[in-house]
Amino acid sequence: MCGLVGIVGSGAVDVAPDIYDALTVLQHRGQDAAGIMTCSDGRFHQRKSEGLVRDVFRQEHMARLEGSIGLGHTRYPTAGSSGPALAQPFYVNSPYGIALAHNGNLTNARELGQALFDSELRHLNTDSDSEVLLNVLAYELQHRGKLQPQPEDIFAAVAAVHRRCRGGYAAVAVIVNHGLLAFRDPNGIRPLVFGYRDGPRGRDYMVASESVALDVLGYTLAGDIAPGEALFIDAAGQLHRQQCAENPRLRPCIFEHVYFARPDSMMDQISVYKTRMRAGSALARKILRDWPEHDIDVVIPIPDTSRTAGQSLAHDLGLKFREGFMKNRYIGRTFIMPGQSQRKKSVRQKLNPIRLEFEGKNVLLVDDSIVRGTTSREIIQMARDAGAAKVYLASAAPPVRYPNVYGIDMPAAEELIAHERSVDEICAAIGADRLVYQDLDDLIRCSAEGNPEVDGFDCSVFDGAYLTGDVDAHYLQKLSDARNDAAKEQSDVRAHGAVVGIYNDR
Amino acid sequence: MCGLVGIVGSGAVDVAPDIYDALTVLQHRGQDAAGIMTCSDGRFHQRKSEGLVRDVFRQEHMARLEGSIGLGHTRYPTAGSSGPALAQPFYVNSPYGIALAHNGNLTNARELGQALFDSELRHLNTDSDSEVLLNVLAYELQHRGKLQPQPEDIFAAVAAVHRRCRGGYAAVAVIVNHGLLAFRDPNGIRPLVFGYRDGPRGRDYMVASESVALDVLGYTLAGDIAPGEALFIDAAGQLHRQQCAENPRLRPCIFEHVYFARPDSMMDQISVYKTRMRAGSALARKILRDWPEHDIDVVIPIPDTSRTAGQSLAHDLGLKFREGFMKNRYIGRTFIMPGQSQRKKSVRQKLNPIRLEFEGKNVLLVDDSIVRGTTSREIIQMARDAGAAKVYLASAAPPVRYPNVYGIDMPAAEELIAHERSVDEICAAIGADRLVYQDLDDLIRCSAEGNPEVDGFDCSVFDGAYLTGDVDAHYLQKLSDARNDAAKEQSDVRAHGAVVGIYNDR
Amino acid sequence: MCGLVGIVGSGAVDVAPDIYDALTVLQHRGQDAAGIMTCSDGRFHQRKSEGLVRDVFRQEHMARLEGSIGLGHTRYPTAGSSGPALAQPFYVNSPYGIALAHNGNLTNARELGQALFDSELRHLNTDSDSEVLLNVLAYELQHRGKLQPQPEDIFAAVAAVHRRCRGGYAAVAVIVNHGLLAFRDPNGIRPLVFGYRDGPRGRDYMVASESVALDVLGYTLAGDIAPGEALFIDAAGQLHRQQCAENPRLRPCIFEHVYFARPDSMMDQISVYKTRMRAGSALARKILRDWPEHDIDVVIPIPDTSRTAGQSLAHDLGLKFREGFMKNRYIGRTFIMPGQSQRKKSVRQKLNPIRLEFEGKNVLLVDDSIVRGTTSREIIQMARDAGAAKVYLASAAPPVRYPNVYGIDMPAAEELIAHERSVDEICAAIGADRLVYQDLDDLIRCSAEGNPEVDGFDCSVFDGAYLTGDVDAHYLQKLSDARNDAAKEQSDVRAHGAVVGIYNDR
Amino acid sequence: MCGLVGIVGSGAVDVAPDIYDALTVLQHRGQDAAGIMTCSDGRFHQRKSEGLVRDVFRQEHMARLEGSIGLGHTRYPTAGSSGPALAQPFYVNSPYGIALAHNGNLTNARELGQALFDSELRHLNTDSDSEVLLNVLAYELQHRGKLQPQPEDIFAAVAAVHRRCRGGYAAVAVIVNHGLLAFRDPNGIRPLVFGYRDGPRGRDYMVASESVALDVLGYTLAGDIAPGEALFIDAAGQLHRQQCAENPRLRPCIFEHVYFARPDSMMDQISVYKTRMRAGSALARKILRDWPEHDIDVVIPIPDTSRTAGQSLAHDLGLKFREGFMKNRYIGRTFIMPGQSQRKKSVRQKLNPIRLEFEGKNVLLVDDSIVRGTTSREIIQMARDAGAAKVYLASAAPPVRYPNVYGIDMPAAEELIAHERSVDEICAAIGADRLVYQDLDDLIRCSAEGNPEVDGFDCSVFDGAYLTGDVDAHYLQKLSDARNDAAKEQSDVRAHGAVVGIYNDR
Repeated sequence: MCGLVGIVGSGAVDVAPDIYDALTVLQHRGQDAAGIMTCSDGRFHQRKSEGLVRDVFRQEHMARLEGSIGLGHTRYPTAGSSGPALAQPFYVNSPYGIALAHNGNLTNARELGQALFDSELRHLNTDSDSEVLLNVLAYELQHRGKLQPQPEDIFAAVAAVHRRCRGGYAAVAVIVNHGLLAFRDPNGIRPLVFGYRDGPRGRDYMVASESVALDVLGYTLAGDIAPGEALFIDAAGQLHRQQCAENPRLRPCIFEHVYFARPDSMMDQISVYKTRMRAGSALARKILRDWPEHDIDVVIPIPDTSRTAGQSLAHDLGLKFREGFMKNRYIGRTFIMPGQSQRKKSVRQKLNPIRLEFEGKNVLLVDDSIVRGTTSREIIQMARDAGAAKVYLASAAPPVRYPNVYGIDMPAAEELIAHERSVDEICAAIGADRLVYQDLDDLIRCSAEGNPEVDGFDCSVFDGAYLTGDVDAHYLQKLSDARNDAAKEQSDVRAHGAVVGIYNDR
Repeated sequence: MCGLVGIVGSGAVDVAPDIYDALTVLQHRGQDAAGIMTCSDGRFHQRKSEGLVRDVFRQEHMARLEGSIGLGHTRYPTAGSSGPALAQPFYVNSPYGIALAHNGNLTNARELGQALFDSELRHLNTDSDSEVLLNVLAYELQHRGKLQPQPEDIFAAVAAVHRRCRGGYAAVAVIVNHGLLAFRDPNGIRPLVFGYRDGPRGRDYMVASESVALDVLGYTLAGDIAPGEALFIDAAGQLHRQQCAENPRLRPCIFEHVYFARPDSMMDQISVYKTRMRAGSALARKILRDWPEHDIDVVIPIPDTSRTAGQSLAHDLGLKFREGFMKNRYIGRTFIMPGQSQRKKSVRQKLNPIRLEFEGKNVLLVDDSIVRGTTSREIIQMARDAGAAKVYLASAAPPVRYPNVYGIDMPAAEELIAHERSVDEICAAIGADRLVYQDLDDLIRCSAEGNPEVDGFDCSVFDGAYLTGDVDAHYLQKLSDARNDAAKEQSDVRAHGAVVGIYNDR
Repeated sequence: MCGLVGIVGSGAVDVAPDIYDALTVLQHRGQDAAGIMTCSDGRFHQRKSEGLVRDVFRQEHMARLEGSIGLGHTRYPTAGSSGPALAQPFYVNSPYGIALAHNGNLTNARELGQALFDSELRHLNTDSDSEVLLNVLAYELQHRGKLQPQPEDIFAAVAAVHRRCRGGYAAVAVIVNHGLLAFRDPNGIRPLVFGYRDGPRGRDYMVASESVALDVLGYTLAGDIAPGEALFIDAAGQLHRQQCAENPRLRPCIFEHVYFARPDSMMDQISVYKTRMRAGSALARKILRDWPEHDIDVVIPIPDTSRTAGQSLAHDLGLKFREGFMKNRYIGRTFIMPGQSQRKKSVRQKLNPIRLEFEGKNVLLVDDSIVRGTTSREIIQMARDAGAAKVYLASAAPPVRYPNVYGIDMPAAEELIAHERSVDEICAAIGADRLVYQDLDDLIRCSAEGNPEVDGFDCSVFDGAYLTGDVDAHYLQKLSDARNDAAKEQSDVRAHGAVVGIYNDR
Repeated sequence: MCGLVGIVGSGAVDVAPDIYDALTVLQHRGQDAAGIMTCSDGRFHQRKSEGLVRDVFRQEHMARLEGSIGLGHTRYPTAGSSGPALAQPFYVNSPYGIALAHNGNLTNARELGQALFDSELRHLNTDSDSEVLLNVLAYELQHRGKLQPQPEDIFAAVAAVHRRCRGGYAAVAVIVNHGLLAFRDPNGIRPLVFGYRDGPRGRDYMVASESVALDVLGYTLAGDIAPGEALFIDAAGQLHRQQCAENPRLRPCIFEHVYFARPDSMMDQISVYKTRMRAGSALARKILRDWPEHDIDVVIPIPDTSRTAGQSLAHDLGLKFREGFMKNRYIGRTFIMPGQSQRKKSVRQKLNPIRLEFEGKNVLLVDDSIVRGTTSREIIQMARDAGAAKVYLASAAPPVRYPNVYGIDMPAAEELIAHERSVDEICAAIGADRLVYQDLDDLIRCSAEGNPEVDGFDCSVFDGAYLTGDVDAHYLQKLSDARNDAAKEQSDVRAHGAVVGIYNDR
């Protein structure tokens, strides 16, 4: 997962401060690295580095980020591919000078990379599929060879990107002297919205991963970029839109609703907040149906994501809803002192129970989903240590059983607690007295209710059905191997350095 | 407000990593600066600087912070007294070598400072009353002149400190080669707890501002340090306690319960969480009594502090409780771009409303307290912009009408919206359709219920009654002048530098 | 002026530490910025930033600079074109992935830049002619379109570069997976040598701006890269050489001998040290001829560059040679204190006279050359203040009357003290009692004596004869305007930022 | 060796920039750490850290260093006592607030430290004898107990310091609100001069280790602070001087003339430059006397210190003097690459021979002194590798046979190549064809000629005669042991940290 933002300002005002603010609002989508590129007088200005937005940009950087057009990115670390070389946006100088930031994952990145070299000698200096996406786009624009590309040239290049690339992708790009381009894969797996703000000098446009960035900056949400659609705002501030895919369908990633997106975001006209409220209600119905004799005393969310579902769940069950866990907002680093071995930061340092809400009670903990299960096990134990009589756990999402290949950094299948385990086995493994999972049909209904025109959802982590049709056992095995290799490399400084590329930082 | 922690480890293990972790848990008590001092082989090691705990300490600092005894501090900025020189702990080399960290405020600091110079030529290099407190303690120990001070010498020095110092103070100190000292003012205005953890090498002790630090580090809460009491853990790990005040009374600051402390903390045997639950219930009773015909549709807390009170308020009113505001967890800096003037970060960048919870509804917003009123006004307007039909506001605390002189950085009286205004006038000023304040008697009851042995509370910000008896109109006027001067100095770089003292950092 | 180094190692050993050491030896050629790129496993690793070599590279950077092939650069600031975006090496990803570092200046950079865009849509993100040179090379390689370029392809591309580019240039480039390329302009204006070091794993090659880098690293000087020649060391460690220019002539920049190069360097088989010894002797002959009745008591060099010439001058005149000025090796920054205006660091902070060598004496100061004349004036005054009876000045170089367009950052003509002034006028302007300039013929003889096969020298700063034939009054006027604009921009932070491009640092 | 500076300005102008500039001029006296403290409005401001002056102070630090009185220090690393805690000036708050910087070494520091604790419970947090010196001074001032100390009180305290402290020391101190104090040990072992600069607001005073600091800043040298003398400039700018020792004698360290001081400094009215010229002449006389048949072709100094002596030596021998070694001014760090072991920076990276000055010639190399001999051996080999027929070495100082206990960081006796070796044995050990040492009598004459009133010199490194009378075999053995321990600690990170004390930096 990553966060994207692109802005075209209407006057001579620098857009970097707004991009910066938007990136802080999208920080939840990626805390590994951040970057901004702006363009003025035919030149790009750039600052990117590992770290949180507030740590990456200092006054001296902002002062250089001039220009009334620009884009930004917050990066989520994915296994085996962190490092300063992978901070975005990426840049190529040929043709035109293009900067691009990307959210998602290409499933045919390796083949595309080989083809880029073979057909046009384009070198890729990182393992990032975002560098691949940029170079495919660059190749297609170069191939058209226009000194002054028009919107139709750019849309044609995006159409070629759609034909060649497989996977989930939302992207924002700036083409020097020409404008800002945004596009979304033909299934609309990754989200992308846009909006506008009218001011004394004209209309400003913003493209962003989530509508909250528009809200906070005072922009009006104009709508989603449709699956396969490309949006281009030219140098004169004129907006152009075109459908560039042959057979677009709206099948967004349902895990955005479950976990990733902020609840106050609208995605494909669906309120994330409402989907979570509905998910809580659906869970309540399931409990009332399957477990009418339940003895739950209180519903306690595991903060912060599950709070919304927890509220409706408690309300519909007619139970008390209590903030039984306090989240430690300030988590520090882990230091190795001379003569000591590494100490592990446990869940205890992130959550602290309020004893009185647990003592002698049967508590129903609510989480948004269960992935590896290790955290669930620790929290359940913490609830018992705090005096709970019985500890039940409800997951607002169904069992996570398959890896994600469209941009969410999920563990390999064998690391998922639900992988090849029944619900009872999972319940035993995490030490709960009872475990309730949302049904996938219910989850889909909760999301679909927000926009009846949706064609479906990418639910692959739940059902293993990969929309792009090119993900087979062989691919998943390679993915798993790569993850394992990456894990090994983490402990090998030299290997870690090997994936590092073009950067100047630190 | 500041956070304190002191640890005496039982073996040869360095305590700095535990102090670090404890400081992150106490980070909410002060985000301006942080510091740790440890002691090994008769030498202090120190690291302190402005910034958050996670930014102040790096591996290289931690590696130097050796020793099995040490103390830490997180600093809250107070008007006119920020700057790197004011990071704590403070240090004097005479007598013995003493490091001290302090939470609170001395109301007779100026007179004490003069006396320190006159009687023993002690120079104070900052405006900090913490430096005064350390030097009074040092003077009293020096005065006794023992080569090997015993617990009774140390307690006698604390007794003298109590006789000489006025105000609210909790303090932790380390005396080279002798041990760790902790003490609390005779009214117990500022909190201080201690606990222990038994390990293979013996018993570790921790002193901290709040019990959550004990919880998270796996310590058992032993109890509060009583008002006027001193606790001393000697070099052999032996615990000594003694009441050092002549007429101690337990009258802790009630604003800790209202706002400052973490809800999962126990203070003077009172659960902060429970006081807030009770405060919500009390508010509910007041509304039912004074406004039985209310037309509230939903209760919405202003996150994070008011969430607890909001839940019980909603529950007791039989209303829905909804998280209508989402908090932006990542707030960035404010940059000045070339040619632009400073941009103000507004409440909009901290909170984002979920429109559907407001549209067409009569909402009751709940906040923990109202200080300047500017934030309340902005939030109320935001609720209206989000479509609320009517916007009511409930404050879990009574009107804040007086400045604080015991360590909480409150604005001067004239900046308080409740200063010389009726509730109706305040309601009009913040633009609410109705405003409900907690009654002070109710608030005191909510807190006192947790510990019947409490002698009262410092409620001075609500009632203007200052417990130490030395705060008069003249003192408050000087305080107000100092704040105004400080405000002016903020825009004067040179003057700002003038309060900076002994430091090496940045 | 800039410093270049490229190394191809013979084993699996990282070359970055050797490149680093070589850059410190070449630091005198540029102190503005430094950069290293290495290549391993088909990926470039990079670190570049403004500052001295010792400040730019830290352990964490070096650890990432893996690979047994790489290149480095130290940058000399040129008017109007400093900034982090201009640190070298530069990089393009198409074709192959190429990194290039450059010393010199292209006189037709603007036209080339336009052509690069028109013919292949290549965008240049900086004003740097080095980016132009890289893209011309890249274009020519791309144009050949080989998946596996052979040495002849690479040499053909260099030949095309020579046909298209005008000016002085020495360059080192690394082509991913293929090897290291070095080449020099057809006049050999800028220096470039290479050498080898045999070790247990085979032969290592180094290319460098000056032979001292070879000396210090233990390499054997193999010789100069000839004007127009290209040298290519392929991935297998095989050395290939080819003359790529149609009409090459050896006419190196004589100012390297006068001032820039280290005396212990060999350039085009000429010992810089010897040229300076001969220049001192030539000056002595001129003094004995034109001023036989001179009353000089002592010869005093202005350290460090003129020391060599000063020694032979004194020796041949039969006079004492004394180090009358001590150089302050540690020059600090200039700070602006609150309320003060900028203070200028004067020559006094760089040189301190030893009074007894001046008192009552007629001193002959020796400098390598006189450019603006301001420093000369200050030093002459300093000599008088130290008690000198008479102060004469000898310049080992002739009057500097014209700007440099081949890579030396000289002031515009009107800022040169010798511009349109007679020697007497200059003498009066700098306040000397007598001024002796080297004759240009003598200077040329001093240099040519080292290598009779030289075809001449670029002496354009002395005689205004520009070898490349494309430098006319119009060009020089534009250069002068650009310098003036740049000077203005220095005081305009915003404009300064405008020339900044792709970088991540600071 | 360390560098000291103290300034009292005459107006409201900040002295920190002048202290900074003076420290850069004194940087040769210590490159390990640097610090400045200034005083304004009764408060000290401080910045100190490890590193060169230009790296330690940034604009933000200077902006805080307000005040028209202050002091600075550059620190030379001494074995076993580096680390950030040891940067100076040091500070105590009792009495008055005193900051002190020190050059030298106390031979009875350990006993004084114990007495400070026993008599007044003063804790020392470092191993630094400078902290001891400060606390002895502080104790003596405290003991007098004056609220407003007068010059006679301060001089009485210095007199007590002289009675109690043994060793070599020059010190500068600032007493808050009272003035600047400077004093020198009763033998005047370490240098200290002072001067003045008259401006529109009155007279500024500067105290410094060497007169060059006065020269460069535009001050007039008023003279030396006499052995045992104290100089006090009070808050009103009034200068007070008094002899505070009972039996002062002027016996300065002769090694300042040999190696440490800048040649352009005046010390005790002796020109360092002239002593070195005379030392060269004395060497010439010795060669002509003892080796009249010598076959030396050329004299080559080992830069930079021996250049002056080399010139007069060559002149008096009637031989050519040539700069045969070029010094690399920019020495980089040593990096450890993954998988490699530490690489040693050799003399080759510091010096590069000019081959033609060596080829086939009999060269006489000149060095200022020979300490360990390892560098001499490497340089002699380098001369041979450059083609020298015979390599002779002349040392402008006699054999160094004993450790220094007065502030110069010399190796332990057994590490000195001249320790228990004859000149022939040393010559063989370093591989020279002949070795000529200055005679001690000659060296003393060269220095004494500058000031006939000198009572002698500290020549202990040459003759083992320690002036303070308290240095016996036992003391030297402990010193040697401490050095060996320190060497061991360097490889033990934990132990290294143990000597670190009060600091905030890095």
